[in-house]
Amino acid sequence: MKVLIIGGVAGGASAAARLRRVTEEAEIIMFERGEHISFANCGLPYYIGGTIKERQNLLVQTVEGMEGRFGIDVRVKSEITKIDRENKKVHVKNWGTNEQYEESYDYLILSPGAKPIKFPIPGIDSEHIFSLRSLEDTDNITDFIETEKPKKAVVVGGGFIGLEMVENLIDRGLDTSLVEALDQVMPPLDYEMAAIVQKHLKDKGAKLYLSDKAISFENQKVTLDSKKELDADLVILSIGVAPESDLAKEAGLDLGQRGTIKVNKYLQTSDPSIYAVGDVIEVEDLVNKAPTFIPLAGPANRQGRIAANNVGGQREVYHGSQGTSIAKVFDYTVAATGNSEKVLKKLGIKYCTSYTNSASHAGYFPGAIPMTVKTICDLKGKVLGAQIVGQKGVDKRIDVFATAIKAKMNVEDLEQLELAYAPPYSTAKDPVNVAGFVANNTLKGDMDIIHWHEIDSILGSERYSFVDVRTKEEFDNGHIENSVHIPIDEFRDNWQQIPKDKEIILICQTGLRSYLAGRLLAQKGYSDVKNLSGGYYIYHMATTEKKELSS
Amino acid sequence: MKVLIIGGVAGGASAAARLRRVTEEAEIIMFERGEHISFANCGLPYYIGGTIKERQNLLVQTVEGMEGRFGIDVRVKSEITKIDRENKKVHVKNWGTNEQYEESYDYLILSPGAKPIKFPIPGIDSEHIFSLRSLEDTDNITDFIETEKPKKAVVVGGGFIGLEMVENLIDRGLDTSLVEALDQVMPPLDYEMAAIVQKHLKDKGAKLYLSDKAISFENQKVTLDSKKELDADLVILSIGVAPESDLAKEAGLDLGQRGTIKVNKYLQTSDPSIYAVGDVIEVEDLVNKAPTFIPLAGPANRQGRIAANNVGGQREVYHGSQGTSIAKVFDYTVAATGNSEKVLKKLGIKYCTSYTNSASHAGYFPGAIPMTVKTICDLKGKVLGAQIVGQKGVDKRIDVFATAIKAKMNVEDLEQLELAYAPPYSTAKDPVNVAGFVANNTLKGDMDIIHWHEIDSILGSERYSFVDVRTKEEFDNGHIENSVHIPIDEFRDNWQQIPKDKEIILICQTGLRSYLAGRLLAQKGYSDVKNLSGGYYIYHMATTEKKELSS
Repeated sequence: MKVLIIGGVAGGASAAARLRRVTEEAEIIMFERGEHISFANCGLPYYIGGTIKERQNLLVQTVEGMEGRFGIDVRVKSEITKIDRENKKVHVKNWGTNEQYEESYDYLILSPGAKPIKFPIPGIDSEHIFSLRSLEDTDNITDFIETEKPKKAVVVGGGFIGLEMVENLIDRGLDTSLVEALDQVMPPLDYEMAAIVQKHLKDKGAKLYLSDKAISFENQKVTLDSKKELDADLVILSIGVAPESDLAKEAGLDLGQRGTIKVNKYLQTSDPSIYAVGDVIEVEDLVNKAPTFIPLAGPANRQGRIAANNVGGQREVYHGSQGTSIAKVFDYTVAATGNSEKVLKKLGIKYCTSYTNSASHAGYFPGAIPMTVKTICDLKGKVLGAQIVGQKGVDKRIDVFATAIKAKMNVEDLEQLELAYAPPYSTAKDPVNVAGFVANNTLKGDMDIIHWHEIDSILGSERYSFVDVRTKEEFDNGHIENSVHIPIDEFRDNWQQIPKDKEIILICQTGLRSYLAGRLLAQKGYSDVKNLSGGYYIYHMATTEKKELSS
Repeated sequence: MKVLIIGGVAGGASAAARLRRVTEEAEIIMFERGEHISFANCGLPYYIGGTIKERQNLLVQTVEGMEGRFGIDVRVKSEITKIDRENKKVHVKNWGTNEQYEESYDYLILSPGAKPIKFPIPGIDSEHIFSLRSLEDTDNITDFIETEKPKKAVVVGGGFIGLEMVENLIDRGLDTSLVEALDQVMPPLDYEMAAIVQKHLKDKGAKLYLSDKAISFENQKVTLDSKKELDADLVILSIGVAPESDLAKEAGLDLGQRGTIKVNKYLQTSDPSIYAVGDVIEVEDLVNKAPTFIPLAGPANRQGRIAANNVGGQREVYHGSQGTSIAKVFDYTVAATGNSEKVLKKLGIKYCTSYTNSASHAGYFPGAIPMTVKTICDLKGKVLGAQIVGQKGVDKRIDVFATAIKAKMNVEDLEQLELAYAPPYSTAKDPVNVAGFVANNTLKGDMDIIHWHEIDSILGSERYSFVDVRTKEEFDNGHIENSVHIPIDEFRDNWQQIPKDKEIILICQTGLRSYLAGRLLAQKGYSDVKNLSGGYYIYHMATTEKKELSS
């Protein structure tokens, strides 16, 4: 059996190593267009920023290592220019020697990845404008910073890599702006959760230009759609990536949405001799079952392994992707898994959201810091998604959510998860348990809720009475106008002040104390009481961003 | 409705707060024998050690807070001396005023907890000997350390609290010894995993006396069963706890094993008006379904909430406990969930174990540190338990395992978990994914394995050939006697040296490289090849401990 693997990073390298473990008999040739295989793609921003000091460390696996340990014929600087399906051959061009030749196959595994999107904007090919995909790109950016000593940088695109670049450029002392076409950074997050991240970015000195676009890169300036002009000695483009499917398209393989390659559940393309893995393929969204494009390293690696198993004669199924993603943004960790409210709304799937604010570990043990958790479930309680922003322990809780979503757990299951508790690590009721409690309360209608985006339109209306149950200090620090202030610890003696003939909106900082107040009112005969979901914190974060944006 | 709650810490306090949210109508009285309610039980060792500086911080909820916010009548220093089930009354004694009175109830929630076990050993009531359960105990220990300035401490009992005390006493500068009757510390761990912890304890200066018992505490010495004598200015007893079920027993409630109170799945005792929660009850082991006793804070809190919901008219089920536990032991985090090999062996349940060694996050990002993971599954692959020892990210992985066990996942599901990956947080194949890969390989018989405890008895036998595939440096640093050394990267050219007429035992540091070698040999016609599970690392750790113990 002769197997050719096209692409030597994440998915391709995984497939090659796994295939060798499955069979010693196969001849395995791996082609990589670049100079390096299996390099640390996700580490590139941190090398530019200086956190990763040794370039050597980015080379996870070398050609020699792969050949020696696994007996794989690795050919770098080797681009496949054509797939000849009829004759089961590929055309190869070696960029080093300019040699061209054909290589036959029994099976082909495609792992070409995705390439940074570039729009034909004036000046986009200038020397100070970079994308970041390969080690070569990284070297070019690093060299440019060292030789040209740029002072002002503009990052275009506020996704995960864009934000990592903002952090790393600021770490290197560059005055850095971020331009994003959407009204928020980090598309997997919903607006109000992204607002928390945006506040932090600004606190760390980044300048944000949201709902705006670069329309020219000429004259060391980035000109925006809004007519604003930003000085830029260095520009990083991270608008997104597109699947590298030209070769597959020319070969007549079925394509999916956004130019992805279509595969079945065994990761086989429309040609049974050809498998495809990684950023280039269309996957099924694990939560909503729709076909989608989720270019992430974790899924790519697992797909490589599965394709290799199947080429080796097994029948292993890839069960879809859920888009679990995480990024460090200065002092914050920002993470998401499953579907966002935005996605569900677009698909017309009914859902219920709730927010919780929980300490990373026991409050009485030094160093506990709160995180904000958004939990999304369907109307029967099945967990559909989660988003978390905080400084500590965020990665742990998103992984528990990711596991729960994979297991099709509902919010009641979250309540009963028995997670590890000792003071340095968690609280007796872990943030995920608490998220389960609140989501379940919300779902069961223990209390009606109102969302942050519904508030401003009812401000000033006579129909409503806003009651804030926070402490005096919190209240004085900022509150919704015309709120009545009754601190929760005095609430039991003062609730009678609250009019029975109005709709009551209860407010605290995060939604917990207002829930307690609401439970009391509900049992005292108040029929129309709503809790501000996520509390003043989420309301304030989200509306402040909205106001800044529109000003 | 009038509800009495007996016990004002974890389970009791949770029940009280929840019950008020469920109903404003109930009269709720909470009795606590001690002076404080809802104190930070699990934080006590850290207050003694000085990590938690303010005593105030240990008081999570005060009497005034509980009364004001929840309208609960809280009575401290109040012990229940009798439950009169026939008349639905309890007899109360106030230790402060010596007042005695009766209080009637519609429902009773018992949350008396568990008390430290004390054996009648000569000298056990001496002034320098302490247990650690209450804030008063903590004050007494702290006062003793400050006024008597002890130099040598002995901790009796090597469970979680015992080890936390060893760390905290060493942190305070005391020369500290640990005495444990078992041949290992941390009973939820299996022997070889505990061996790693023991090595670390010794590296940090603790003196360990395993398989030994204190038989006298007289004359400022602890005399052991082995006749050894340890100087001790301070002794901490943490042999374990026993349920405080005397009151329930006298009232004729059904008891379970080890003196626990029996409850049904709604946490109701044999008297339908009486619920019981927390350390005092018998629970069902979530994994093996046997009745058991799992005194942990997390389950106690959730049980309190469930009992309150049920008293309030709901029908919520407690689904059993899985014993997820964690402790910080100096630089290490030690965690377990589900069943250990020991427990399964005792119950006669068939299982398969595997070990993996994985970095806490991407190796190319600074600060990655490996952790050792033991995965236990049944013969169909269902995950039954996990144990992890390492320095970073252990709490995250044990929580993912805990969630997977709760969801009845199998090891194949672990392979496909889509966990959050960015270089500061994990690797593209998370340690839990890797544990799934290896467990599944082992289970499917991709390769036979041999366990560390099977090695010594076959050393020197002509039937076996030991082949070590580590680097020269690793090999020179220690290896199994008479091993042949063929580094993995030279293996592909040198495997022919290996005799075909012997049983081959392949060895590397953790079991990964030897697996690669084994896959190659299997495909070259070697019929009897075994991989040393967990590698030289586990073998060395476990056998070194065994030898030290028997010397």
